Formats: sequence, structure tokens, C-alpha cells
Amino acid sequence: RAQGIPYAFITNNSTRTPTQYLARLEAFGIAATPQQVITSSAVTAEEIARRFPQGTPFFALGSPNLIDLIAARGYPFDPERAQIVVVGLDRELTYDKLCIAGQRILAGAAFIATNGDATFPLGNGAVAPGAGSLVSAVATMTGRQPYMIGKPAAPMFQTALRYFGVPAAHALMIGDRLDTDILGAQKVGMQSALVLTGVSGADQIQTIAPDGVFADLAELLAAWRSAL
Amino acid sequence: RAQGIPYAFITNNSTRTPTQYLARLEAFGIAATPQQVITSSAVTAEEIARRFPQGTPFFALGSPNLIDLIAARGYPFDPERAQIVVVGLDRELTYDKLCIAGQRILAGAAFIATNGDATFPLGNGAVAPGAGSLVSAVATMTGRQPYMIGKPAAPMFQTALRYFGVPAAHALMIGDRLDTDILGAQKVGMQSALVLTGVSGADQIQTIAPDGVFADLAELLAAWRSAL
Repeated sequence: RAQGIPYAFITNNSTRTPTQYLARLEAFGIAATPQQVITSSAVTAEEIARRFPQGTPFFALGSPNLIDLIAARGYPFDPERAQIVVVGLDRELTYDKLCIAGQRILAGAAFIATNGDATFPLGNGAVAPGAGSLVSAVATMTGRQPYMIGKPAAPMFQTALRYFGVPAAHALMIGDRLDTDILGAQKVGMQSALVLTGVSGADQIQTIAPDGVFADLAELLAAWRSAL
Repeated sequence: RAQGIPYAFITNNSTRTPTQYLARLEAFGIAATPQQVITSSAVTAEEIARRFPQGTPFFALGSPNLIDLIAARGYPFDPERAQIVVVGLDRELTYDKLCIAGQRILAGAAFIATNGDATFPLGNGAVAPGAGSLVSAVATMTGRQPYMIGKPAAPMFQTALRYFGVPAAHALMIGDRLDTDILGAQKVGMQSALVLTGVSGADQIQTIAPDGVFADLAELLAAWRSAL
């Protein structure tokens, strides 16, 4: 930020709003505005607005936040007539909701997934089922694969690039997961840097090779400064 | 039956009891005793009794019937300490139950699936999520594959063979699905006959080839009589 380089945060987590994220970032001493937080929920709503006529009914397995964001774009939530089915992380999942999602897709509705993350971290080392687990259930029931929004799929990265108005080759993705952050960035032609503070370790770098590897953000910034 | 040949019915459906099945068979004019109806729930309970010490705590996504059958073998239902997790068709599925199942498996519990059927027929052409859809969700969350009980897996067929006390080569499996009934029979070395009254058509016979193909049970019986 001191360099005046624009930045944003992109997250697959579709259960929190940008404002909720800012509080968490602030706890780490990181300043940002809500516009700088790009969630899979927001990108899902944006992709629906780009691909379907306003007024198309939808159904979703997902957080109230996800449903509100889509509805706010002018799409009515209607389980019985849905032409679009969105599957994300839904802590209020029931068998009946799973049934509706699958039945609407089998009846011809589009199948969109917020992301494919298998698990959702609970913070104490424990995990809960992620959006990807629910997506697998619906994919198995219907024999269909979803249009994927979240990392490593392209829409999340493309939305961030549109936000900055820069071509992919001029953008750097910094992430802590090889199979989502780094792979996704490479697929859209962005540069990528892996920081070893999260999920992926240096020993896991094989077919997915980032442009740079750093112990943490401080080391990345130091390398950056000395390169300028 | 008039020939005095012993027979049994084997079904992946784990939501009904044998007695409930008899009522359905009777409606088709077919007589049977509860012992002749082999369900994936009963075989699951039997397999648990064969593989785990009595008293091992278990958790299940499944029907009350499934849970009762396992508990009746001397296994306590205990979500918090489960060392065995059974996943079947559970119309009372919730996110929290899915979470417990995955967490116990990640903590080391055995992962057993009643069957892998993707859908469950509702009878009017519509389908609901089958056990296999729930199994996919748990498999994705945990990165683990289950020990499978239902057709086409071997345990269902082996239980039927034990019931009759005959070797596989002396038994005939009659079924209407190539990918479960016929494939499973072949894997354990049983003869197999496909009847074209159900899911699979004659045009689908390719790599899974039954020993005989019949329009319906009447045609199969006529062929049988003329061969005797």
C-alpha cells in the first residue's frame, strides 16, 4: 500500500460479507475498503447478472448473504420454478433442500457452484463440510458438473482484473494454496507468488509452480522493495 | 417357486424393513418370508458385526431402520465417539449431521456406505438424492472412499449366497440393472439374467454382458421350464 500499488482480497468463502472480512483484516493490521474484498458470493451474483435475463427465478443452497446478493440483482428466489441453481456452503442444509436443487437441475436449470472447496476451516484445526462437498452431492444426484465460480476457476480472477482494469500479465496473485490461488492465477495468465504461511508447503511445489515463493508477506515485501 | 428352487430378494434400498417389502411384493402376487428379503441395511449391520468388536460406537446418516438394525447387534449410537460411520439414504439429513460424519472419519473412524445409488426413485418418475449422493459429499469432505455394501459391491451377493449355502457358480442373479445387479453378480462369480422391465435396455449391453436376456420374468420362466 505504501508503494501505491492497488490491491484486493479474493476469497472463496461465501458465508461472510465484505464488511465482516474487513473486521478480520483489521485484526491483522491490514486496511481495506469493502470494494477491495471480492467474495465468491459477489462474483456468483455478478456472473448470474452477466449470463441470465433479470427476473429468472433461482434457488440456492447457501448463506443468507449469497441469496440476498443474487436477489438484489433482480432475480427472484423461487424453489419451485428455479431456472438457476446455485450451490455454496449452506449450514442450514437439509435433505429437502438437496432434493429441490437436484430436481430443478434435472428439470433443466443451470447448475452454478460458488466454489469447490472440500472443507471449511472452523479455526481450531477442525473442519466442516465445504461448498465442494455439497456440490459433489448435487453432481452425483444429477450426473451434471457445475459452472464453477470460485478459485481456481477463472471468474474470481477475471472479476479482480476488471476491478483494477489491468491485463492479467500486469497483475500479481499472492496466495497460500497451490491448487486454488496459484493454479487459478496461472490459468488466467497472472503472475503468482506463494507464501508459506497457510495450506501449501514448499515441498508440495511440483506441477503447479508459482513465479515466486516466500516464507511470509514480510519476506515478499522485502524482495519487492529491493527489486524496485 | 413351483420348481422348489430357493430364492431371495436383494435390494439396495435401506429405508424399508423386510416386512414393508413383503407388502409390496404381495401386491405383485409374489410370496416371500422376511428372511428372503435381503436389504443393504441388514447386510450393513451384518458386516459391522463381522468386522468390529461389539460395543464399538457408531454414527449413521440413514433411516431409523438402519440405525436400529446396527444398534440391535450391540453397537451404541454415539455421534461424539463414533469409530464407525455409516452413510446411507437419510431423509433427515442436516448440515450438522454431515459435519459429524466427516469429522469422525477424519478422526479415524471407518467409513461404510450402504450403497452408491445416485438417486432414489419417488415412483412418479421424479427422483430424490440417493445414498450415493450423500456418500459423495462425505467422500469429498474427507478425501476418503467408503467400504461399499450395496450392489454392485460383493457383500450383498455374498450374504445371499451364505443364506442359501450354495457356491456362487450354482446361483442365478436375476436383475433389471446392468451396472448393479448384473455387474455385481459377475464379480462374485454368479450366473446372471437381465430382465428388460426396469432400468437397463438391451441396447445398453456392452462390456457388462449377462448370461441371459429376457423381456420379463414370464419369458425367463418359460425358457427355464423348457430347459429342465
